[in-house]
Amino acid sequence: MTLEVVSQARCFDGTQFVYRHASTVTGTNMQFAAFVPAQAEHAKVPVVWFLSGLTCTEENFTVKAGAQRVASELGLMVIAPDTSPRGTDVPDDAAGAYDFGLGAGFYLDATVAPWAQHYRMRTYIESELPTVIGESLPADLTRQSIMGHSMGGHGAMTIAWRLYDSCALIEDGARLDGLLVDQGTTDNFLKEQLHPEILDEVCRAAGINLTLRYQQGYDHSYFFIATFVADHLRYHASALGVPTNP
Amino acid sequence: MTLEVVSQARCFDGTQFVYRHASTVTGTNMQFAAFVPAQAEHAKVPVVWFLSGLTCTEENFTVKAGAQRVASELGLMVIAPDTSPRGTDVPDDAAGAYDFGLGAGFYLDATVAPWAQHYRMRTYIESELPTVIGESLPADLTRQSIMGHSMGGHGAMTIAWRLYDSCALIEDGARLDGLLVDQGTTDNFLKEQLHPEILDEVCRAAGINLTLRYQQGYDHSYFFIATFVADHLRYHASALGVPTNP
Repeated sequence: MTLEVVSQARCFDGTQFVYRHASTVTGTNMQFAAFVPAQAEHAKVPVVWFLSGLTCTEENFTVKAGAQRVASELGLMVIAPDTSPRGTDVPDDAAGAYDFGLGAGFYLDATVAPWAQHYRMRTYIESELPTVIGESLPADLTRQSIMGHSMGGHGAMTIAWRLYDSCALIEDGARLDGLLVDQGTTDNFLKEQLHPEILDEVCRAAGINLTLRYQQGYDHSYFFIATFVADHLRYHASALGVPTNP
Repeated sequence: MTLEVVSQARCFDGTQFVYRHASTVTGTNMQFAAFVPAQAEHAKVPVVWFLSGLTCTEENFTVKAGAQRVASELGLMVIAPDTSPRGTDVPDDAAGAYDFGLGAGFYLDATVAPWAQHYRMRTYIESELPTVIGESLPADLTRQSIMGHSMGGHGAMTIAWRLYDSCALIEDGARLDGLLVDQGTTDNFLKEQLHPEILDEVCRAAGINLTLRYQQGYDHSYFFIATFVADHLRYHASALGVPTNP
């Protein structure tokens, strides 16, 4: 497995990389971003995954969220994958919908043609990419945690459970040690699409330790993410046994 | 003077705005970004200006630098203007050079045709935009400080001195209370174009309090800016009499 460095820049005493590699799972070249903290010079470090939302690539979270500051403090590697396979032979929605096709892989393995050939993001994120990272980067794969935003927040939950509908999975018996969810109250998608109250209900019924915070006046943007990303990194660091004194 | 809200998003308990207004100085519509901290609900707040580098708009610093976190803590309004006038009747470099014309106003007033009509960024930043902000936003214009990156770092110095060559100005007698300059050692532009050692020499000769820090391994990117922006905001807050206990 060869990782090609697309770019690298020093950031908060660590290095922000973008890598490219040939994926056998998606049958395409894939890019992902990796923040490698200075602590990795001496020992393998825990890994926090961030799955992005619709239309994103590996770049959005990497340049907009300001996550490197706290990842550097806590000694966390942060991996931000792309959201779909890409390339001239990867089919896209014919009408160009932003929520289907390119940039909208939904972290699942498609099952019907023409999608099933390349759209295999579940297996890519769950299996192939961790293997690539474990072979090439100073990552302690025994300590991994996952988060995300929008499509990627749901993807983070289903990948933690290894199937596709987080609320149905809880009803069917899936369990996690804990969940931290922030929801902006002026999020444009809140009333029609997101329904965090359903997640709240099924977690209560199942006894899952969900912390659901409604953040007054915040929307769906990366300004919202940047505001609360430190809390989330500390949450995952704590779950991974990393000291998190601010 | 009418300010049109292009976008707004809650961020670190304040609001990140992008505004548009008709500029009489440039003869175009101009956009600028303004972070308004929560402290401004109760009293006018000090203003820190950030002037961006070549090719940037008001967006780059706003979405990539992570400045809102510390601006929120310190109660600073942060203004990020665009880097040139824009519009179909604004001339650009015929060959499309990135360092002349659109996105490359260099914070000066052009003096020859066809540039002199619209490229009047010095007067825009020094006079018109502060007036607009003072009339429409909760800004305490008696407390202003200015910083920038690359073309904008130089622009910040010349606007503080009101002319165009920072080193020549110091030799000619211009003075400032203090300067904080960070320079990445792996900056691609360092050896051929930037010459911070000249600034260092003239400041030493003139007795100007320059803190010039060479940051090992950092480049010219916004990852570099994001890493050190908190130090710069604290520097300006201190100069403005704002308490800066971390």
